[in-house]
Amino acid sequence: MDLIIPVVLCGGSGTRLWPRSRKAMPKPFLPLVGDTTLFEATVLRCPAEAGFGAPIVVTGALHLEHVEAQLADPAASRVIVEPEGKNTAAAIALAALRLPEDAIMLVCPSDHHIGDVAAFQAAAREAAALAQDGWLVSFGIAATAPETGFGYLRRGDAIPGSGGFAVAQFVEKPDLQRALGFLADGGYAWNGGIFAFRAGTFLDELAAHRPALSEAVRAAAAQGQADGTRFHPDPAAFARIEGESVDYAVMENTARAAMVPAAMAWSDIGNWQALHEARDHDAQGNTVRGPAELVDCSGVLVDSDGPRVSVIGARDIIVVVDKGEVLVCTADGAQKVGKLAGAVNQ
Amino acid sequence: MDLIIPVVLCGGSGTRLWPRSRKAMPKPFLPLVGDTTLFEATVLRCPAEAGFGAPIVVTGALHLEHVEAQLADPAASRVIVEPEGKNTAAAIALAALRLPEDAIMLVCPSDHHIGDVAAFQAAAREAAALAQDGWLVSFGIAATAPETGFGYLRRGDAIPGSGGFAVAQFVEKPDLQRALGFLADGGYAWNGGIFAFRAGTFLDELAAHRPALSEAVRAAAAQGQADGTRFHPDPAAFARIEGESVDYAVMENTARAAMVPAAMAWSDIGNWQALHEARDHDAQGNTVRGPAELVDCSGVLVDSDGPRVSVIGARDIIVVVDKGEVLVCTADGAQKVGKLAGAVNQ
Repeated sequence: MDLIIPVVLCGGSGTRLWPRSRKAMPKPFLPLVGDTTLFEATVLRCPAEAGFGAPIVVTGALHLEHVEAQLADPAASRVIVEPEGKNTAAAIALAALRLPEDAIMLVCPSDHHIGDVAAFQAAAREAAALAQDGWLVSFGIAATAPETGFGYLRRGDAIPGSGGFAVAQFVEKPDLQRALGFLADGGYAWNGGIFAFRAGTFLDELAAHRPALSEAVRAAAAQGQADGTRFHPDPAAFARIEGESVDYAVMENTARAAMVPAAMAWSDIGNWQALHEARDHDAQGNTVRGPAELVDCSGVLVDSDGPRVSVIGARDIIVVVDKGEVLVCTADGAQKVGKLAGAVNQ
Repeated sequence: MDLIIPVVLCGGSGTRLWPRSRKAMPKPFLPLVGDTTLFEATVLRCPAEAGFGAPIVVTGALHLEHVEAQLADPAASRVIVEPEGKNTAAAIALAALRLPEDAIMLVCPSDHHIGDVAAFQAAAREAAALAQDGWLVSFGIAATAPETGFGYLRRGDAIPGSGGFAVAQFVEKPDLQRALGFLADGGYAWNGGIFAFRAGTFLDELAAHRPALSEAVRAAAAQGQADGTRFHPDPAAFARIEGESVDYAVMENTARAAMVPAAMAWSDIGNWQALHEARDHDAQGNTVRGPAELVDCSGVLVDSDGPRVSVIGARDIIVVVDKGEVLVCTADGAQKVGKLAGAVNQ
């Protein structure tokens, strides 16, 4: 099989994991789980020995420095520097335009955690094989909770000779009642934003379903400038692109949507509670980074960049200290961190 | 009636309200409730117009600077500088030895909060009248909760012609079961460490029940040195004093122990939860000092010396930030603050 080209998407505003994650240094570039950053881990889980080629990273000027500092092999990697954020359809199209038509792309968000790398690589191989046959493939991530913050994929017919399935339906973020139903049904998986397709197939489908978007991206790429490993789309042309997600623009419209099941200890690390769950814990369910003393605590996360944090008698509380900001929240409260004045006005 | 001389005791190690209270700047000298410090408030609630004379403060060298900086009228006040802490019997005896025999002393801890100053002053007048008649008088603070951290006074017979009572019994810190019994009984009050007596009466009782302690204090005072408003007991003589509380040394042994009831919104501000209760609250029971944002919180105390504290979804949690230390605790947890490494090793 051809090499799989990781297309790593690096956006993110850094509000939901504030105050650790900030606009200038958002989530992908922080070592939130283990010692590597989420971006580094995204690249490292796509190594040559598992059939991957050198990555293409799509990012903004604000984060270019972090990307290049954290790339495992910067000389071999390519970086597309977006003048502004235009959502995922444009970002993926830009990468596709810099690749041969028959290249197999694996689109990877750079701010997720995947605990089981072998399962990820196995799913990537399944997805790549289907992509080679002309499918546009989503990873269908095994749902382990009635999440209301994710889109879902409803599994259709099995695709003969593969481990994949047609997608019967893309489902928007459900309410809790529906999410519980999906979980009980078993035929639904989370749409985690990981996709495989041939570059040419993707561009054809984009042109078919979003001709204006397709034209605008082609213009921005055609008038863009290469600079060593970097590629800069033309800013004026780029500004005319309508930002839209790849799900809306392509995946929900194509007749060739497939999915591969992936049970790989995935988390989008969507807030501090999700990060709490992804980290290692002691016997009391506590997890600590930085100087801390915990007394009579359970389910407590402490993350401090310097000041000592002393906690007594707390259950299921998150305490984060970063550069003069202190956050204390419950598991439920973690969902509202992005709306705090500190997160909004950074 | 003679002037009442406030004898203000300033000790304290500053561990239970750590990290705000520190060894070098402990509880009495901090504006913990309202804008005045507990020490300032102790002095201010004994004004000339309510029958009080200028205060005598007993403190250690470490805190002399704070005492003199915070005295309302330093030129008129006297300060006894103890070379080391020797507990309350010695501190009170030193003050008594610097006063005429017939002076009425009102011993006041400097780290308590009293919400109802008029009630305090009324009780002080009652106590002073009994002291003038030769009683050794404790304030019997109306018990409002089954506290296990305080000693109790059992009320005996009323003393005719006064609002006071003989003390039937001094009771050590009870367990919860006994404390609940005391509260239900109604005949018990908290022993808050506020006392009134004639200087001569106190010294006589001390000599009768603790002759060695009495002699040692007399020697330290006799060989001491006055320096303007300051008085320095002789360090060598002082070192030979056996430290003992006034309760053990005198009050529990004298036949002349009396009490005056005092319902005066008293708190010893013994930990962060007690301070939480003494402060003003918003409609959700939250109380905030310093920059903070609270979302979906109730019963939360935030006290920060600079860093912004953002709290979401928490109930009955205390968050304190002070000079690079962050404390998060529950109401129960507040009792263990003094045992934290940060508090012990400061």
